[in-house]
Amino acid sequence: MKIEGFAMICPMIVGFIYGEYDVIYSFGVPIVILLLMGFILTFKRPKNNSIYAKEGFVSVALAWIVMSAIGGLPFLISGDIPSVADCFFETVSGFTTTGATILTDIDGMSKSCHFWRALTHWIGGMGILVFALAILSNNDTRTMHIMRAECAGPKVGRIVSKSKSTARILYLIYIILTFIEIILLMLGGMPLFDSIINSFSTAGTGGFSIHGTSIAYYNSSYIEIVISIFMILFGINFSLYYLIITKKVLQVLKDEELRTYIAIIFVSTILIAINIYDTCQNAGKAFIDALFQVSATITSTGFATADFTEWPVFSQTVILMLMFVGACAGSTGGGLKVSRVIILFKTGLKEIKYVLNPRSVQTVKLNGKALENEIVRGVSSYIVIFFFIFFASWLMLSADKFDVAETFSAVTACMNNIGPGLGRLGPSGSFSGFSDASKYILSFDMLIGRLEIYPVLMIFSLFKK
Amino acid sequence: MKIEGFAMICPMIVGFIYGEYDVIYSFGVPIVILLLMGFILTFKRPKNNSIYAKEGFVSVALAWIVMSAIGGLPFLISGDIPSVADCFFETVSGFTTTGATILTDIDGMSKSCHFWRALTHWIGGMGILVFALAILSNNDTRTMHIMRAECAGPKVGRIVSKSKSTARILYLIYIILTFIEIILLMLGGMPLFDSIINSFSTAGTGGFSIHGTSIAYYNSSYIEIVISIFMILFGINFSLYYLIITKKVLQVLKDEELRTYIAIIFVSTILIAINIYDTCQNAGKAFIDALFQVSATITSTGFATADFTEWPVFSQTVILMLMFVGACAGSTGGGLKVSRVIILFKTGLKEIKYVLNPRSVQTVKLNGKALENEIVRGVSSYIVIFFFIFFASWLMLSADKFDVAETFSAVTACMNNIGPGLGRLGPSGSFSGFSDASKYILSFDMLIGRLEIYPVLMIFSLFKK
Repeated sequence: MKIEGFAMICPMIVGFIYGEYDVIYSFGVPIVILLLMGFILTFKRPKNNSIYAKEGFVSVALAWIVMSAIGGLPFLISGDIPSVADCFFETVSGFTTTGATILTDIDGMSKSCHFWRALTHWIGGMGILVFALAILSNNDTRTMHIMRAECAGPKVGRIVSKSKSTARILYLIYIILTFIEIILLMLGGMPLFDSIINSFSTAGTGGFSIHGTSIAYYNSSYIEIVISIFMILFGINFSLYYLIITKKVLQVLKDEELRTYIAIIFVSTILIAINIYDTCQNAGKAFIDALFQVSATITSTGFATADFTEWPVFSQTVILMLMFVGACAGSTGGGLKVSRVIILFKTGLKEIKYVLNPRSVQTVKLNGKALENEIVRGVSSYIVIFFFIFFASWLMLSADKFDVAETFSAVTACMNNIGPGLGRLGPSGSFSGFSDASKYILSFDMLIGRLEIYPVLMIFSLFKK
Repeated sequence: MKIEGFAMICPMIVGFIYGEYDVIYSFGVPIVILLLMGFILTFKRPKNNSIYAKEGFVSVALAWIVMSAIGGLPFLISGDIPSVADCFFETVSGFTTTGATILTDIDGMSKSCHFWRALTHWIGGMGILVFALAILSNNDTRTMHIMRAECAGPKVGRIVSKSKSTARILYLIYIILTFIEIILLMLGGMPLFDSIINSFSTAGTGGFSIHGTSIAYYNSSYIEIVISIFMILFGINFSLYYLIITKKVLQVLKDEELRTYIAIIFVSTILIAINIYDTCQNAGKAFIDALFQVSATITSTGFATADFTEWPVFSQTVILMLMFVGACAGSTGGGLKVSRVIILFKTGLKEIKYVLNPRSVQTVKLNGKALENEIVRGVSSYIVIFFFIFFASWLMLSADKFDVAETFSAVTACMNNIGPGLGRLGPSGSFSGFSDASKYILSFDMLIGRLEIYPVLMIFSLFKK
């Protein structure tokens, strides 16, 4: 319910900003609706203030859906996107920081809608932080069991001694980083409006950009490197920044997830750079292209400077796998999260060791501390459910006119909140070819990916009663 | 060590049969090698007769590799397959009952090699039963933990009161079923030689056939229906046949895995039949085509009567997913096995229920009996390791010249022991386009899929010491 009120304020701000661009109706109507809804909901505050895990999950998921439905109104009213399914898809894609678009003519959209699109990313990215905190600060140990698997390690517990002040610190980091990026991009010769939009997209690890050719439009190595670095920065667990501020730098450097994350980026970049060397003009260009696409994929941003659908199959496969890995837990990025992959990998190793030597007692460790069995089991179950939904979506989408690899990549890109897929769904393509039903399925997948499955599934449990 | 001796006898039988076709050298040399090896190994029988889980695993895996290497010699010596990597690939594909081929001109091969190819399937299929029994009859409870997950339910435990007599019963069922199929196929007008080869391929759920166009060559609905039914029969847990013999038919009908297996076949057939209706001449043809391809895929046989790579994407996706599901545990079929999928699905449901209502105690049940946590965890770990190997192989193969969907399907088809993949690797295609390195990787994947991961991985542990 609280989040509903939060949703109400944001478009209002947008409305004020957009007074300059004379789009009163398209934003005015949804703002009035949101204000009314927020007012009624705040007025009817229930006496029982404690929120249980289940209700918390359901309200978060419902809030996201309502936010997306109303958030799509500006596109619909302004006429930039005429279809209801498209508007919903685009807004879900925005709030979930996926960045998949159904637009075929991105450059032709009005500036106000561009700004709103980028803002949904920024709010979405911030929303993830709120959400993570809202759940984590809850004392309910059962909820902790589920969520701690994601934010594994001792860091989170230490920060959230007081939820509200922590939230403020995280937001501050988020805002400052965005601000620095805007400045740096402007120094590289990018116009203010573009800088803001691209920074919003980077911060939320979304991927919406203002031009059909994405970041390649600017054709500047400086800009590409700056955005690469900021994508990587926004893909790091935000609590690590808190540790840097409190001068626990050594602890940050020892963080296993961060190390793995950096190692994956490094290795993938080198591999791809070598693989695409023949098609690029020179080694520098190959390296920057590889670095940019690797960071854009692993952080689930989905920006593009080169069309990876034209790369050799090896590079395409690397990119496709990075989509599943995703960014660090506790960041704005999507995917399965690096820590989950680490835990899974170690679980696999443990199991093999167990079979080799059944007498030894094996535990899965992260950052040198043993993880509870509950967490390890939670991660495995998460993956199982993830893949069941994945296969079901894939099957349903396959009835559309795209080929096997394209359909597969569409589900991959949406469930991991990346954005562009392979083939005709690549960086220069668009999802507009899908049927309305498929667009709703993909929207559902994006929400599933963003909210980490459970909240969305719980909505279904409401219907059961 | 025992299995090594077993491997020695089989090519000898083949040799005797092939005295008729005058291929003394190509089979003679490997037989001499095997006889010598078998003799030496049997002579040096160790005093300590008890085999531990680890040594058992390693020796089984090594035996398979040695068998495949020597089993490939007839192809090499006869000149039917000139490359070493190809011979190894083809024989591994045979013994693991995968049925993927590197042959581009299947019809041109000599009859003796055809027979040997089909026989590897038949021996391979039988070998799986031995292996399952050898492990299951072991009293070591730790081994039971790992393997019981596969042969879930109460059935196996009840049969293996005496391992040797059970093995004899299973072989008898296997031989009788093969024999009935040969007779039925001959009644359908198929020549004796073809009937034997196709029955061997069906029994082992392999998929090698004597003609480049597979079963479509015969162009007979009768033959297609007979083979469909036998593929489904060989995909059923063999211990269920034992129950039928001992007149416990009711227990068989209640079996959850069997029911799910039949249900999946039924639903997939109907869906595909509707989907391909437009491209077929009539409803009957669509149904038979669908039924044949569904049974060929779910049982991991890989026979073909229609080129599913030319079907609509929806049907292709269904086929691709059936590849992962696989046949029933305790059958000659490959894949993840229906019971594993059931356990996984129930684990997912349990986890969701747990999150919805953390106070309730949830257990995963199969055939109405609760499964131990150890088994459920084993299944999850199995899937995790399976997919890690899957992704690693996919990545390595992607350096070859095939596209994303083809590479993906190659790994899928090999790890699940199916045979044909998508695109250029489809039923009418061949794996010959892969590099030698890729062929060894795929051979490894086939062994991994067939021996259910652990035995093959344990070979690596030998090098560590």
